[in-house]
Amino acid sequence: MAGSCYTRGLPYLEKEATMADKIQGIFCPHMVPLDAANAIDETELRRLVDYLVEHGITGLYPNGSTGEFTRLTESERRRVIEVVADQTRRAGRSVPVLAGAYEANIDMTVDTMNYYADLGCRAGAVIAPYYYPMSQDSVRTYFEELAERSRLDLVMYNIPQFTNEIAVDTVVSLCQHPRIVGIKDSSRDFPRYIVTMHKVRPLRPEFTFLIGCEEILVPSVIMGGDGGTIATSGVVPEVIMKMYNLAREGRIEEASKIQYQVLDLIAVMLTGADFPEGFRAGMTVRGFNMGRGRQHQSAASQLNIESITRTIQCMVAEHGLVSPPAGGCDLANVDEQTVQQIVSRVIAQLDR
Amino acid sequence: MAGSCYTRGLPYLEKEATMADKIQGIFCPHMVPLDAANAIDETELRRLVDYLVEHGITGLYPNGSTGEFTRLTESERRRVIEVVADQTRRAGRSVPVLAGAYEANIDMTVDTMNYYADLGCRAGAVIAPYYYPMSQDSVRTYFEELAERSRLDLVMYNIPQFTNEIAVDTVVSLCQHPRIVGIKDSSRDFPRYIVTMHKVRPLRPEFTFLIGCEEILVPSVIMGGDGGTIATSGVVPEVIMKMYNLAREGRIEEASKIQYQVLDLIAVMLTGADFPEGFRAGMTVRGFNMGRGRQHQSAASQLNIESITRTIQCMVAEHGLVSPPAGGCDLANVDEQTVQQIVSRVIAQLDR
Amino acid sequence: MAGSCYTRGLPYLEKEATMADKIQGIFCPHMVPLDAANAIDETELRRLVDYLVEHGITGLYPNGSTGEFTRLTESERRRVIEVVADQTRRAGRSVPVLAGAYEANIDMTVDTMNYYADLGCRAGAVIAPYYYPMSQDSVRTYFEELAERSRLDLVMYNIPQFTNEIAVDTVVSLCQHPRIVGIKDSSRDFPRYIVTMHKVRPLRPEFTFLIGCEEILVPSVIMGGDGGTIATSGVVPEVIMKMYNLAREGRIEEASKIQYQVLDLIAVMLTGADFPEGFRAGMTVRGFNMGRGRQHQSAASQLNIESITRTIQCMVAEHGLVSPPAGGCDLANVDEQTVQQIVSRVIAQLDR
Amino acid sequence: MAGSCYTRGLPYLEKEATMADKIQGIFCPHMVPLDAANAIDETELRRLVDYLVEHGITGLYPNGSTGEFTRLTESERRRVIEVVADQTRRAGRSVPVLAGAYEANIDMTVDTMNYYADLGCRAGAVIAPYYYPMSQDSVRTYFEELAERSRLDLVMYNIPQFTNEIAVDTVVSLCQHPRIVGIKDSSRDFPRYIVTMHKVRPLRPEFTFLIGCEEILVPSVIMGGDGGTIATSGVVPEVIMKMYNLAREGRIEEASKIQYQVLDLIAVMLTGADFPEGFRAGMTVRGFNMGRGRQHQSAASQLNIESITRTIQCMVAEHGLVSPPAGGCDLANVDEQTVQQIVSRVIAQLDR
Repeated sequence: MAGSCYTRGLPYLEKEATMADKIQGIFCPHMVPLDAANAIDETELRRLVDYLVEHGITGLYPNGSTGEFTRLTESERRRVIEVVADQTRRAGRSVPVLAGAYEANIDMTVDTMNYYADLGCRAGAVIAPYYYPMSQDSVRTYFEELAERSRLDLVMYNIPQFTNEIAVDTVVSLCQHPRIVGIKDSSRDFPRYIVTMHKVRPLRPEFTFLIGCEEILVPSVIMGGDGGTIATSGVVPEVIMKMYNLAREGRIEEASKIQYQVLDLIAVMLTGADFPEGFRAGMTVRGFNMGRGRQHQSAASQLNIESITRTIQCMVAEHGLVSPPAGGCDLANVDEQTVQQIVSRVIAQLDR
Repeated sequence: MAGSCYTRGLPYLEKEATMADKIQGIFCPHMVPLDAANAIDETELRRLVDYLVEHGITGLYPNGSTGEFTRLTESERRRVIEVVADQTRRAGRSVPVLAGAYEANIDMTVDTMNYYADLGCRAGAVIAPYYYPMSQDSVRTYFEELAERSRLDLVMYNIPQFTNEIAVDTVVSLCQHPRIVGIKDSSRDFPRYIVTMHKVRPLRPEFTFLIGCEEILVPSVIMGGDGGTIATSGVVPEVIMKMYNLAREGRIEEASKIQYQVLDLIAVMLTGADFPEGFRAGMTVRGFNMGRGRQHQSAASQLNIESITRTIQCMVAEHGLVSPPAGGCDLANVDEQTVQQIVSRVIAQLDR
Repeated sequence: MAGSCYTRGLPYLEKEATMADKIQGIFCPHMVPLDAANAIDETELRRLVDYLVEHGITGLYPNGSTGEFTRLTESERRRVIEVVADQTRRAGRSVPVLAGAYEANIDMTVDTMNYYADLGCRAGAVIAPYYYPMSQDSVRTYFEELAERSRLDLVMYNIPQFTNEIAVDTVVSLCQHPRIVGIKDSSRDFPRYIVTMHKVRPLRPEFTFLIGCEEILVPSVIMGGDGGTIATSGVVPEVIMKMYNLAREGRIEEASKIQYQVLDLIAVMLTGADFPEGFRAGMTVRGFNMGRGRQHQSAASQLNIESITRTIQCMVAEHGLVSPPAGGCDLANVDEQTVQQIVSRVIAQLDR
Repeated sequence: MAGSCYTRGLPYLEKEATMADKIQGIFCPHMVPLDAANAIDETELRRLVDYLVEHGITGLYPNGSTGEFTRLTESERRRVIEVVADQTRRAGRSVPVLAGAYEANIDMTVDTMNYYADLGCRAGAVIAPYYYPMSQDSVRTYFEELAERSRLDLVMYNIPQFTNEIAVDTVVSLCQHPRIVGIKDSSRDFPRYIVTMHKVRPLRPEFTFLIGCEEILVPSVIMGGDGGTIATSGVVPEVIMKMYNLAREGRIEEASKIQYQVLDLIAVMLTGADFPEGFRAGMTVRGFNMGRGRQHQSAASQLNIESITRTIQCMVAEHGLVSPPAGGCDLANVDEQTVQQIVSRVIAQLDR
């Protein structure tokens, strides 16, 4: 039905989407571990995939914003997908991969989408073009052309903080294209999310809505959303999956309780350091060797990351998933040494 | 308990807030009907109050943004509250009034708050200062001083689109003041709303959270919010109260269904014309003589308002609350005359 | 010519603007001194007017943003203009008054404009409506109606940081109205200023362009602007008038040198405290009793204002206009007590 | 002197900048012609370089925003610089190249900078990291590390519309690094430009300030700026160089007159289509085969580009640099066919 209502007369061929194919659940936009040479640490990446799958994650979402796709080279981005796609299929597992796909121009993006199709990915997530401001007419044209030339299903990724917006009307005009199967929205604008679902659902019921705003996963599912891409699910997959499943089952009170419980953890990882350093710290807490990020941090930032890592460990420990850090989590008594350090810093500043 | 945890040693006297006193439900931020001389039409205002009370609205919220407080004089603002407070008490009714209270400076605002206290209002809603940008430290100081000098409970009103923001940390630092009993948030930022509840509730359980974003009333109530100030409740009070009550009772599916049903009506009233002209049109549809607004409209705007009034009437008619407009609501066949008008306009533009 | 090219057929009667009438020069958007009871201190206000006139200011601009018009009552705003208009005419002086005129609705604004006309003001400066977002069509309608009903020339005041913007095209469509004689632009957007002059000048050569951005007065005059409304001219009128006159005479190098010299003073007054507290501090340095502002300041803000007052005094002293503060202006040696205070504050924060 | 005041004790060796080395003048941020296969058309690119050099441009600025660096691959970006560097040196010419240099991470950017150093470029222009929001501390760290590891002088490029801002204080803290020799500012914020010059000049007189905002080149030079990166200089190099030289010589009136004359041309190229399509149209008018951009345009956009190309040709023809388009530049009589087209479009829209 969805395919047939797209009436522009283009040669839409084989595909007839059904509700059974619908993308739904929690997809983890995971980070990429780096080794001592600052290259991709494939062993650790495979271990990370196993850990997520074993803890019940619905799907993987490599090369997202959290996965720092802009800081990898083109060939590294392809390698990440090769490794993840391969590892998710190990031992007969069937875990869908939603692969971040954005390259320098539309031809390269089409090539990438088709390469990911051959690797067996479920879909590619594509942001609107960034850096250059663009009219909605051009945004629409971009996705339309991309969808028509790709052999892989496409999930639009709306993140207007970083890129051109994909406006509600643009989503509505694109939602009936058989290759465009959903939208991931990270805009924080929940009214917009509700309104978009309201406008799209009558046109194409199996169109997927994934929320990228971690603080409101539960209400988004309650209002009919299909899940989310939740970076926190890399750090506490057990907790996020439980919360999501409770919400799906209509056990609202229990789901909401967990949603509130994870707010502090989300806050410290999201805003405690330059994004996505907080999530790198979180993965370290879960025992992964993530290496050093490619965007170098100032001395102050590095100090800060040490501090929030401790905080994250305390929070994850509360869920019983790791041990508390050495020295414990009682924040009341800050030691004399810390006070001295800060005092020195103040006096140094006065000297300047 | 809440009162006692405010430890700044000030002479907080009589008041010991309890959960029973808590402000909750739907407060209608209604408009003020104007007569032929562009003065307040008190007869129509009283009729409007009766209509809202009889249709089950929880409370009235005069002098809000929808009530165009900036376009009334100081004495007119006082008169609006006098009339509304008097009319809500008629015939033994007990309908709480949350009165918008913002004057040119803090002394005048204190006087106004105290005047509204004498009129029997439940609380005053106060925005952060506007026009001049201000630090959060100053915003906090402003509310603190206002609360200490007023004899009326205070609900903070966060609307950063129009005024200085009241940041989450500022809310947290003010929430334990016995006179500050709640916040109304119209920021559209639902993650912020969730996070603020999470931080405030452990400090003061009876602190009220009212949402001002009409598209997400249902999810806000599901997540533990206390209601909202919903301008659409002036136009379809029957529908909004039903939706709210279903959400409170945990009948999520039914509540959500209505939430989705009213989205189009909200959209046309909120964005179909310069705010709040769409709501004035809506009240006209319900049979009120609202008069002409004080912010004059261009010829094009007036034409547009006629058009959206028809649309609103069609939407309200779908709920069975009014008759459809003469000529019906089938938008399919636009008449020949309209086409001619538009063609003329195009040619005129080319001539220029 | 300008009047004649306004072809809408309205009964534009007496007025035929000429280049001789053109508003130009430096208008001081001065503050209003308050007495111990927080009322207008008329004696000090008259003394302030005399001081500005005697130091060669071109004109006065009472009830501007710096004059805190939103924090005065309607009758206070009228009183300020009465006093200023009277005092500028004392002893046969002829100093034009550009009176800030914004009231709650268009009828009251018209009344106010006409009242200021009777008081002999040269023109009224009117901002676009604020608080409510508004289409450009409505902004245009607002000014058009206001201009048609007022007996006083109107200068539009563009300050999009605080109010609705007056877009370039709106200025162009309004610039030929005989009552609308100029624009004051405080948007900081210099390319916009240049482009607007380019579009308006061929339509109406005597239309006035005043810049409200103090850092770029000199380049704006060099590029053909007519002067500015410069709050710093309240604190150092001698310096600003000299700079302006040099720029008018084409003595670019000397003018630019002064422009650079005053940048630090502008910065500390504009951003050193919540606007316009820095300018209040500046007037205090020049010996005026300004009283306490109506927007109450936190303890931290008050401490800060004391500190920037000292800095301002040092800067004004460098121009030889006042004595340096007791203790001198050598900032190198911060005393032990200050260090102790800051250390205590840090420890207090850790305790929290 | 500049080198010596950088006191962090690092082994800054060979380099001792002097005023003679200072980068100044007009650098053209030119586009890259593409051939029928959408690959770089090197022949046309060399012809474009010759044309700019022969028309007196000070320097070339390949791989800027106008040069669409995000839409080229890493190897294509290198190839562009190879070709431009080679062609600027042909026949003994000495035209400095300021090469846009931004790669996926800091290691790759360092490699690129060093590669461009070997090619003989004068400096590399580097934007602050984009896509991810970043603290100023991190922005500073990024440039500092980059400067310390590169063998090529670095010009910071501030364009907060597209990337993280480089705040004034960050510029001040970086300006004494011997490798960081200037800033190009495209923020449109002229007060900021003035303030930054005021703060940096006493610390390092030979630090270069290039403006990227085309509407205010003349006032920026008058106030002491060193030139600009002006995309319009690709389309009318004769006009921009004349304007710049007049401004440098203090012939303010003549320079300003040209500045005003080019405003309409700038406007249509900058905002008449999605950036940088207007400049591609402009280069076509000057006789270059630019090919089709890699960001595909909708049918409506393509129609629009045809229309603005005609407008640009008329504007450039007014300067006597090209012939007017066939059919002439009299826009008064729009033909009947166009009216019919628009009428059809209106009716089609009504049908929907």
